[in-house]
Amino acid sequence: MALARFARNSWTRSGGPFGNSRIEDVFYGVSSRQCCLPSLENPGENNNLSYFSSIKKVNHMTFWSRGIRVTPHYEFPSAEMIAEEYDAEYVEPRYPGLEATKPGEKPRVVVLGTGWAACRFLKGLDNKIFDIVCISPRNHMVFTPLLASTCVGTLEFRSVAEPVSQIQTALAKDPNSYFYLASCIGIDTNKHEVYCETVSNGGLPRDPYQFKVAYDKLVIAAGAEPLTFGIKGVYEHAYFLREVSHAQEIRKKILLNLMLSENPGISEEEKKRLLHCVVIGGGPTGVEFSGELSDFIMKDVRDRYAHVKDYVQVTLIEANEILSSFDVGLRQYATNHLNKSGVCLMRGVVKEVHPKKIVLNDGTDVPYGLLVWSTGVGPSKFVKSLNLPKSPGGRIGVDQWLRVPSVEDVFALGDCAGFLEQTGKPVLPALAQVAEREGKFLVKLFNRIGKENGGKAFSVKDIPLGEPFVYTHLGSMASVGRYKALVDLRQSKDAKGISMAGFLSWLIWRSAYLTRVVSWRNRFYVAVNWATTLVFGRDNSRIG
Amino acid sequence: MALARFARNSWTRSGGPFGNSRIEDVFYGVSSRQCCLPSLENPGENNNLSYFSSIKKVNHMTFWSRGIRVTPHYEFPSAEMIAEEYDAEYVEPRYPGLEATKPGEKPRVVVLGTGWAACRFLKGLDNKIFDIVCISPRNHMVFTPLLASTCVGTLEFRSVAEPVSQIQTALAKDPNSYFYLASCIGIDTNKHEVYCETVSNGGLPRDPYQFKVAYDKLVIAAGAEPLTFGIKGVYEHAYFLREVSHAQEIRKKILLNLMLSENPGISEEEKKRLLHCVVIGGGPTGVEFSGELSDFIMKDVRDRYAHVKDYVQVTLIEANEILSSFDVGLRQYATNHLNKSGVCLMRGVVKEVHPKKIVLNDGTDVPYGLLVWSTGVGPSKFVKSLNLPKSPGGRIGVDQWLRVPSVEDVFALGDCAGFLEQTGKPVLPALAQVAEREGKFLVKLFNRIGKENGGKAFSVKDIPLGEPFVYTHLGSMASVGRYKALVDLRQSKDAKGISMAGFLSWLIWRSAYLTRVVSWRNRFYVAVNWATTLVFGRDNSRIG
Repeated sequence: MALARFARNSWTRSGGPFGNSRIEDVFYGVSSRQCCLPSLENPGENNNLSYFSSIKKVNHMTFWSRGIRVTPHYEFPSAEMIAEEYDAEYVEPRYPGLEATKPGEKPRVVVLGTGWAACRFLKGLDNKIFDIVCISPRNHMVFTPLLASTCVGTLEFRSVAEPVSQIQTALAKDPNSYFYLASCIGIDTNKHEVYCETVSNGGLPRDPYQFKVAYDKLVIAAGAEPLTFGIKGVYEHAYFLREVSHAQEIRKKILLNLMLSENPGISEEEKKRLLHCVVIGGGPTGVEFSGELSDFIMKDVRDRYAHVKDYVQVTLIEANEILSSFDVGLRQYATNHLNKSGVCLMRGVVKEVHPKKIVLNDGTDVPYGLLVWSTGVGPSKFVKSLNLPKSPGGRIGVDQWLRVPSVEDVFALGDCAGFLEQTGKPVLPALAQVAEREGKFLVKLFNRIGKENGGKAFSVKDIPLGEPFVYTHLGSMASVGRYKALVDLRQSKDAKGISMAGFLSWLIWRSAYLTRVVSWRNRFYVAVNWATTLVFGRDNSRIG
Repeated sequence: MALARFARNSWTRSGGPFGNSRIEDVFYGVSSRQCCLPSLENPGENNNLSYFSSIKKVNHMTFWSRGIRVTPHYEFPSAEMIAEEYDAEYVEPRYPGLEATKPGEKPRVVVLGTGWAACRFLKGLDNKIFDIVCISPRNHMVFTPLLASTCVGTLEFRSVAEPVSQIQTALAKDPNSYFYLASCIGIDTNKHEVYCETVSNGGLPRDPYQFKVAYDKLVIAAGAEPLTFGIKGVYEHAYFLREVSHAQEIRKKILLNLMLSENPGISEEEKKRLLHCVVIGGGPTGVEFSGELSDFIMKDVRDRYAHVKDYVQVTLIEANEILSSFDVGLRQYATNHLNKSGVCLMRGVVKEVHPKKIVLNDGTDVPYGLLVWSTGVGPSKFVKSLNLPKSPGGRIGVDQWLRVPSVEDVFALGDCAGFLEQTGKPVLPALAQVAEREGKFLVKLFNRIGKENGGKAFSVKDIPLGEPFVYTHLGSMASVGRYKALVDLRQSKDAKGISMAGFLSWLIWRSAYLTRVVSWRNRFYVAVNWATTLVFGRDNSRIG
């Protein structure tokens, strides 16, 4: 990703230590922080390796940058001036991209991500005030609370995916608003630019295809990554459950294993292994997925895979207690219910993951056919690479208005952001609820600032920001299978309030989520899927 | 696939030239035909290569066959006797599998394939009379006439896929009926056995995992393969449109190209190339896909990819006339309609396919972003490898009762079968209609024979077969986009009859297919998909 080159340019263009640095830089005293490109000094396992690979990539870039096509208006008068003084051999990489907005043009808001936070923000953003650019490796939002249901065919994949261009139609229609299917690889907060790489080449002139986008305001909502605690083999052998494609893979694997275990000559032991579904992590995702799996086994596998139905087993492994954030009564209910549904609950800590078995810390071998990993999320490589202030836990640090201090016009929200220690507030949990509420808060702030002509870069200084963001937890819900769910309406773990479990809770769970589904199209499809699953059972065609 | 080893075994087990060959073999005079395993002498491009690779595989098999697990009942008294006389070094591969049915047990029908012919046959087969084993690399039937609609999101993928275990529930439930997700790699018509390889390893004890299934009756309905006429680059760069996974790939590619072309810095020329969808072949599939694509462009792309909408272009390339089997008036209608819808019709023959362009015979370069190949189908490698009599065109030759002559208890139907020249009947076109009718015919024959105790191997001799199969063409239909379709009810190309085109035809087309969809679940979903597409437009989330 040409990190070294990025850093060098940034230095050159900003004029170096004696160059044309802006007064704000001096004021904020953040020269070391202005360039938030992936830092080479980042603590990592393969520091040496990454150093060499970055050198190689720089050479590669130098090569292709000679023939690079540049948008006609793309100019850096000051940078060009400096380039002349620079050594003649050095060819500056030129990125095609969107240049900074000019006076009179609408300010440009760049949003990184298409998760809950980003989409709630995008949905409310006033496209009469702003030009909007959204950059994400995925063109849709995933309705994550219902993702577990798609793994076994209770819901269809498309019913939980909302195209971002339908959430914010300006992205598709407005002349200066865009959605880019790309990953952000670096940010230059000084120049107000983000650097991106398209997701897949697909035959573009260069590989990787990189470009830059200048912003007036930057909203980082790039999400988090699954926590693996450095355990060997997790990435290679386990499935995560965060994207629709993960759910597709899990569904394919379950159906494949069911069919393979019917093959003649497969031993009893091998059948048991193939049909042993192991879920690591007893949070809401792990529990809901286990519940869905046991529903699938009890209702559909018995009918449709009668030959092997007695070999199927679901085991949920958790180091501590399942659903630790829920009320103790609900936890007990969930435990009993899962046990009754045939889910084996196991206390244990995973030491290693092998292709066909996991090894626990106490030396136990657990053979598996499917392994789903849902032990929560932590900061992504991208977030770690950014040279921005961090919250406890390593997220991007924000103040109570979700601003990233020490740099201007940068905001962060959702799972990638957390309150700075100085704010005295705890880092909020990585929940859809939190992300959505933050998106809602920030978009109000943006629309107000925008109306008061504070949308442009460096223009917000005199506008009062208003009330800070305050999060009130509305409660938690989790389905546990067989038309039962938990609803915990307490505001925090130690507060008092209503908590309930059973069929009524399950009705509340379904109704609540149905109303939260973003589009009418998908609301309709979720309802239709639920109805057809009830009438016809789950679909078990193995596609792809 | 260990061809040499197969051939050797077959020879040994059947007793060699002086061994215990059955009287029927002598009677039929087919000793060279009894072993229908893939033949090494098969004309192919890489004969030398395949020879060496088969040797390698034989060694590999010898290695793993030492530890092979065998089903308890699996015995070959005669073969074992002979093995003793054989050289000591030679370790006979033992396949786990289903042994031949015993007297008193239900006869076993083995069906290869899950296409139109196989599924119509399976649907009607009486599981009180027969044990049923279906072997196919795909666990669902594809409702092919509506597959083109799924590429652009008019229909969802699962709406056109019918799980085979729901078409014939015995496969899932009956104690001795099975569905195996596997490919057939060889048939020993003498021993009445088929040899199979599972589709994907998924961690089975051996890779590849092979097994055998003994049959009383064998129904080969393994389908055909797309014709590429040996043109260089087709397999590497073009998409076919025969499976749901193909439609998924096409949809992903279309959406990817639409998004990539929005990237900053992409030249006009490059945008045009990325968004140039080229369809090769002007048969019903090619025309329907072009029509769907132009609908998608006119309705959805304009709204949702407004920035690049003017760069999208569909070109249909055909060597002769489009829809050559249709009435001349309908052909003219289709041509005019496609032209009006913005589809560019081009006369040409493809010479070579490169990653970003195709070269026509006249030297013209046609740059493309998506290339869909639908020039009809021909015999598959599997069919070519079988040492069975062949029809003109290289399909498995059958008589008028769909029996494969010279071998006993083997039937073939659908796209992989054709009438032998001796029958004096033409080979029927590769149509769903033909395949379905053949399946219907054959299953009636089977159920009748079965009731008369003719289900077991070598037991059908004295039972009269009844009326032969006669095909009457009911007519052809093709949609051309924008609520228009063609309906040609003439029985053959030169016969007289009703032919019509327009909106009414489109209604007939939709209604006819809706009633043909196999399950109520999918009938419901197709209707719901059509309704939501009308109300909300097509879904454009790019999943996976």
